[in-house]
Amino acid sequence: MGEFELIARHFTRKSRRALLGVGDDCALLQLRPGTQLAVSSDMLVAGRHFFDDVDPCSLGHKALAVNLSDLAACGARPLAFTLALSLPAVDDPWLSRFAAGLLALADTHDCELIGGDTTRGPLNICITVLGETEGGALLRSGAQVGDDVYVSGQLGDAHLALRALQGQLSLPEPLLTWARQRLERPEPRVALGLALRGVASAAIDLSDGLIGDLGHVLKASGVGATLHTGALEGRLGLLQQHEMSGQVPAGLEVLDAVLAGGDDYELAFTASPQVRAAVEQASARSATPVHRIGRIERQPGLRLVDPQGQSVDHRLRAFDHFA
Amino acid sequence: MGEFELIARHFTRKSRRALLGVGDDCALLQLRPGTQLAVSSDMLVAGRHFFDDVDPCSLGHKALAVNLSDLAACGARPLAFTLALSLPAVDDPWLSRFAAGLLALADTHDCELIGGDTTRGPLNICITVLGETEGGALLRSGAQVGDDVYVSGQLGDAHLALRALQGQLSLPEPLLTWARQRLERPEPRVALGLALRGVASAAIDLSDGLIGDLGHVLKASGVGATLHTGALEGRLGLLQQHEMSGQVPAGLEVLDAVLAGGDDYELAFTASPQVRAAVEQASARSATPVHRIGRIERQPGLRLVDPQGQSVDHRLRAFDHFA
Repeated sequence: MGEFELIARHFTRKSRRALLGVGDDCALLQLRPGTQLAVSSDMLVAGRHFFDDVDPCSLGHKALAVNLSDLAACGARPLAFTLALSLPAVDDPWLSRFAAGLLALADTHDCELIGGDTTRGPLNICITVLGETEGGALLRSGAQVGDDVYVSGQLGDAHLALRALQGQLSLPEPLLTWARQRLERPEPRVALGLALRGVASAAIDLSDGLIGDLGHVLKASGVGATLHTGALEGRLGLLQQHEMSGQVPAGLEVLDAVLAGGDDYELAFTASPQVRAAVEQASARSATPVHRIGRIERQPGLRLVDPQGQSVDHRLRAFDHFA
Repeated sequence: MGEFELIARHFTRKSRRALLGVGDDCALLQLRPGTQLAVSSDMLVAGRHFFDDVDPCSLGHKALAVNLSDLAACGARPLAFTLALSLPAVDDPWLSRFAAGLLALADTHDCELIGGDTTRGPLNICITVLGETEGGALLRSGAQVGDDVYVSGQLGDAHLALRALQGQLSLPEPLLTWARQRLERPEPRVALGLALRGVASAAIDLSDGLIGDLGHVLKASGVGATLHTGALEGRLGLLQQHEMSGQVPAGLEVLDAVLAGGDDYELAFTASPQVRAAVEQASARSATPVHRIGRIERQPGLRLVDPQGQSVDHRLRAFDHFA
């Protein structure tokens, strides 16, 4: 099967929003008046971001999810995306499942596939996502001294699934299945990002781990923060699952996983204590749980305190692809 | 050096057009009222689109050039681009030269680097380019029976350089140097594409070879074409160079190279015979030579005739990455 047939079979659908979709030199898109374009690109590489034998349906989902998560962090509404795909060979069933996972998530967020590229080479997936904001985009640079620090959902579970799949940690079923779902099929917090516009002072999505990603917010905003270990430990979804199942995974380093696990694709954001009610409304409106985990301070850097208010010494680095 | 430092060192520059450039979750861009967004993505893979030992400065140039060429084919004005880069290792001198080639071409076309991604993995470069059109984008689907068929510049030389570098053809210096420049540093025909808006009826850029790419125009427009071999053979720049140098490269298959060589990054376009003067003006205004090579006909498919009007039997397929 040729490249053009391949594209046609799996990825061409009727244009909806685009003036011109897949199949010309460019796609054409009309933005609504008064809006700005939000753009983000993410590249996923086999062996680095996913296992070679990952379910292609989950991979299609995740490849778009990590991009939509960037739009969520800016409070942008998804519009469209391009897909560039390097494949070692044409594997029709694989492509069919990949496209199914990708396009199902695209439909959920009304985000149209408008173009891209396919070539032969080591497996590599590069998606560029386009969204629109109507002023008041959520930036990393807006955190103010005194603001509350929040995270959405649960953290650390994806990292523990990864360690279990790598054989570094033993997780009993059904905990592994549950955590693996978090790793392989993250749900981008698009609705929360939209609901937080005009409420949050700064936001970022958590891909490399809370410490590193929140660190970007602190640096961009010229502030520091203190986080509460009690609130953080409660963020590990596995612990809640574990209480239900009655099984205790051995060697669970809860704080490590929550603080530096990565692959969470939750949002971390800051907001003035005066808008706590608005944050709760945004959480309810987007059906997304949010949790207060600390406070922004003048002193640069990130500090941890335990439930007794005692300083906790905990050194962790963000996961850095080139470190 | 960490990923973030790497990005900062080589690719972060002061935002010009972007409301928000490299360094947040998304880049933000304001389009001018009444314009549409044009989007295209291209992925370049080592060993497939370039040699492993290619000069990184040329590679940076070409990675953006092939994307700008897509904008040119739509008659869109370049605005901005994202760069996703998978690298086997952090090689500072390599990155410095790659960025130099990339950003020099970006500056030539006032196209701003607004974001992207870097990761470790097999060398892979994915660029998504954004442009704007003001109505009247050039599409593949507009060719009309009776239209003239044109190409810009010279065809086939990049392909001959590739064959020479692969050891399949012997090209004497300085012809090889000249042809290699065409292969490694194509100049996207952005100015011509802009000048052809409202003049050309259809356009495409030539990446996979004239026969295949023009075939997309014919298919999208529901028409066929006859091309003149005499006009086509004159398109090989090497022949002109050769006349000057007095050297005869052995085994030069001129028509093959021109018709199916690929990697030309010239424009093929159609226009009514009634606007020949306007085509000439567009050519002059953009300082880009254009050549009439044939005519659009009702009968589907592509035919060749020699200078005596005799049919030439020539079977060639477009280069297809998955054929």
